[in-house]
Amino acid sequence: MMQNDLMYTQNVKGTSDYTGDEQRLRRRIRNLLEEQFRRFGYEEAETSVLSELDWLTSKYGGGEEITREIYQLSDQRGRKLGLRYDLTMPLARLMTLHPGIRLPYRRFEMGKVFRDGPTKRGRLREFWQCDADVIGIAGPEAELELFQLVMQAFAELEIPITIRWNNRKLLGEVLHVLGVPESLQASAMLTLDKLAKISRTELQNELRVKGLAAESTELLMALIERSERGLSLTDVVATYALEASSGATEALELARLLKALDPNGICQFDLFLSRGLSFYTGTVYEIFDASGQYPSSLGSGGRYDRMIGKLAGREELELPAVGLSFGLESIMELYRQQPRMQQWSIEQAQRRIAVVPLGNTLSDVLRIAGELRTAGMTVETDTSRRRLGKLMNSLYSRGIQHIVLVGETEIANGEVVLRDLSRGEEWVLPIEAAIHKLTCLYG
Amino acid sequence: MMQNDLMYTQNVKGTSDYTGDEQRLRRRIRNLLEEQFRRFGYEEAETSVLSELDWLTSKYGGGEEITREIYQLSDQRGRKLGLRYDLTMPLARLMTLHPGIRLPYRRFEMGKVFRDGPTKRGRLREFWQCDADVIGIAGPEAELELFQLVMQAFAELEIPITIRWNNRKLLGEVLHVLGVPESLQASAMLTLDKLAKISRTELQNELRVKGLAAESTELLMALIERSERGLSLTDVVATYALEASSGATEALELARLLKALDPNGICQFDLFLSRGLSFYTGTVYEIFDASGQYPSSLGSGGRYDRMIGKLAGREELELPAVGLSFGLESIMELYRQQPRMQQWSIEQAQRRIAVVPLGNTLSDVLRIAGELRTAGMTVETDTSRRRLGKLMNSLYSRGIQHIVLVGETEIANGEVVLRDLSRGEEWVLPIEAAIHKLTCLYG
Repeated sequence: MMQNDLMYTQNVKGTSDYTGDEQRLRRRIRNLLEEQFRRFGYEEAETSVLSELDWLTSKYGGGEEITREIYQLSDQRGRKLGLRYDLTMPLARLMTLHPGIRLPYRRFEMGKVFRDGPTKRGRLREFWQCDADVIGIAGPEAELELFQLVMQAFAELEIPITIRWNNRKLLGEVLHVLGVPESLQASAMLTLDKLAKISRTELQNELRVKGLAAESTELLMALIERSERGLSLTDVVATYALEASSGATEALELARLLKALDPNGICQFDLFLSRGLSFYTGTVYEIFDASGQYPSSLGSGGRYDRMIGKLAGREELELPAVGLSFGLESIMELYRQQPRMQQWSIEQAQRRIAVVPLGNTLSDVLRIAGELRTAGMTVETDTSRRRLGKLMNSLYSRGIQHIVLVGETEIANGEVVLRDLSRGEEWVLPIEAAIHKLTCLYG
Repeated sequence: MMQNDLMYTQNVKGTSDYTGDEQRLRRRIRNLLEEQFRRFGYEEAETSVLSELDWLTSKYGGGEEITREIYQLSDQRGRKLGLRYDLTMPLARLMTLHPGIRLPYRRFEMGKVFRDGPTKRGRLREFWQCDADVIGIAGPEAELELFQLVMQAFAELEIPITIRWNNRKLLGEVLHVLGVPESLQASAMLTLDKLAKISRTELQNELRVKGLAAESTELLMALIERSERGLSLTDVVATYALEASSGATEALELARLLKALDPNGICQFDLFLSRGLSFYTGTVYEIFDASGQYPSSLGSGGRYDRMIGKLAGREELELPAVGLSFGLESIMELYRQQPRMQQWSIEQAQRRIAVVPLGNTLSDVLRIAGELRTAGMTVETDTSRRRLGKLMNSLYSRGIQHIVLVGETEIANGEVVLRDLSRGEEWVLPIEAAIHKLTCLYG
């Protein structure tokens, strides 16, 4: 294969490799989210990337727009496989295959998913999802818990947010009053979800093309116009006399409970939020940067009470479910700009110690490095044998503050040289004293 | 699609989903390894799963046996892609695409790799690799550092190990003396690597079939026989007068330095260990359970000084490299049996607190749960409204020790009931006092 003699490679379009500070930040975000998941009592699940293609393309899954983007492959036996495109389908499989899982089941999963779709900034073909879902709670406690988790996580990330929320059932009830037949409601919701992205005229045309009656479309456009001056949940319920309908009742109950949980109004009702995915059955929500600087969503979720039962072919299964997905790439964009996080990155480098042999002292260097690590420190050995001045400059330029120099003469006396690179001071100390001093500083 | 109306699904052969204690243990192992990687100054890299097929199948890569097992796919534009089969090829790509990375580069990566090969217990098609590699150190310091890392990690895992090591160059030198021409050496090594798995007769036949001269084969079989009574490195060097040859010199230097690092003889020289992969250029090693209970390797690694340069099409690049890969699945098998770890699993459950509403106190429950979490505790709310006795039994059976009951009467006085489920005692306390008490216990 001549082509391999002069290899040219690159990252596959829509994928990326991460190293250094970039990776440290990504990891830091994931760790922080994970810590919140754990504090809320969510346990980790880890599902396979390879999935049966039939399962992934089920009509009860993510819908046509997503299934078009599935990476397909087959194994050596010719089985049709696909790469997972989200973490919800694997969760549904888990529930199907393990009917004994104790409910409510609070699980989180963080892992890569794959979509062979268009790429742009913040939109990759291979990317992380960070999901928390609670299965088995039919009441609004589940939504409240996830809202609380969202608020706590973004407080930790120091990103001020707004959670826009709605109830798809309620939106359906409103559309019903406006004369939109049930058969067109899901489709109309898809269009309404683009409200912020397309012009009013485009919206109106799209609704007409989809077959909405002219009168319904006009009423809807009027409602949209009214919503620009503010449209509260109570306004909506009163206007359309929905007090007794189930979607409105759910939404009102959630709003009532949110008052205590969210005194600062982070959660805002938005009648036209519907989220593209058709499997949502009740509450839906999307998280945005409150400053408005970052336009894309930082995460989203919703209730999908029927999906798992349908996928399992057992609609009698009562598996109410609410999910939450953090958008790692979007958070990363904002997170980079957090001064606290840059500071953290520098501090990490400063916590590193280098142990350097001078002469034939490698064994001692390894032993001392081992003892420092046992005391909890991050320790690298530098055996490059570069000129000492050059070496120290290089270590200092990487943010390292303290180094241990292990010379033949000193080690014969059980001593080492501990040097503070930032002050240019150094002390000859017994090994144990040097370790003790560093442990006090870094341990 | 009728087929989806009654969905039947399963895990794809050779893949698995993990939940509960199983996943907690897997995660615990990875966290423990990661902690060691970090203490040794290795920084995390994260590379993409999707790779260019041409790159993965390069003749300088993992060799024919592995490339046959690549999952192949193509994207919507028809680009030929493959799923990564290890973490070394992505590392080589990283070094090729980022020539500015500062050397020595110590990186670790933990992630899933994919091989469409035969499955058996402990051998999956989708599995984790946990790798540490150091690039840019030509001397034995790199090997010593990784050996030290291995010993430290398994000490933490409480698994007694033996590291069997060899030097492929040295084995080549021995084969040369025995009359095996260079063209047959790699192939002969592949056969020798099966020494523990096949009979002597099979071994002899395989060597003959591969074209080794009868005399060479006989000499080799005699050496194998001798090795069963113990064959030290110095024996080998003396027997074949290899004092001046480069492989022997490398091995002797490593053995000399190991004496100080490994006073207990965890590292054992084994002339016939060669590891299948042809890209190894010097030291190779494999980690085994010292008790011999678990026959498969717990990890392995070796030096591959020329691979990255060749892959990059730039052999003038001096990128000496040594790698180490932990076998998560094998470790998992042994780790399950560690009593300390079972104990740890129970302790984790005990550290969980449940907050339960009695009556209309959901908002208070959420607030109190939030405060406990902020103090660092893992807190779940139970809003199932089950009968209290039943509920407490259920929580206790899961290992939960303390619950907070939030009743309407108590909360009106700013109080809650803190109950110790194991002792059956409870106290009515002001909210802050209950939080303080729990913080002392769990915070």
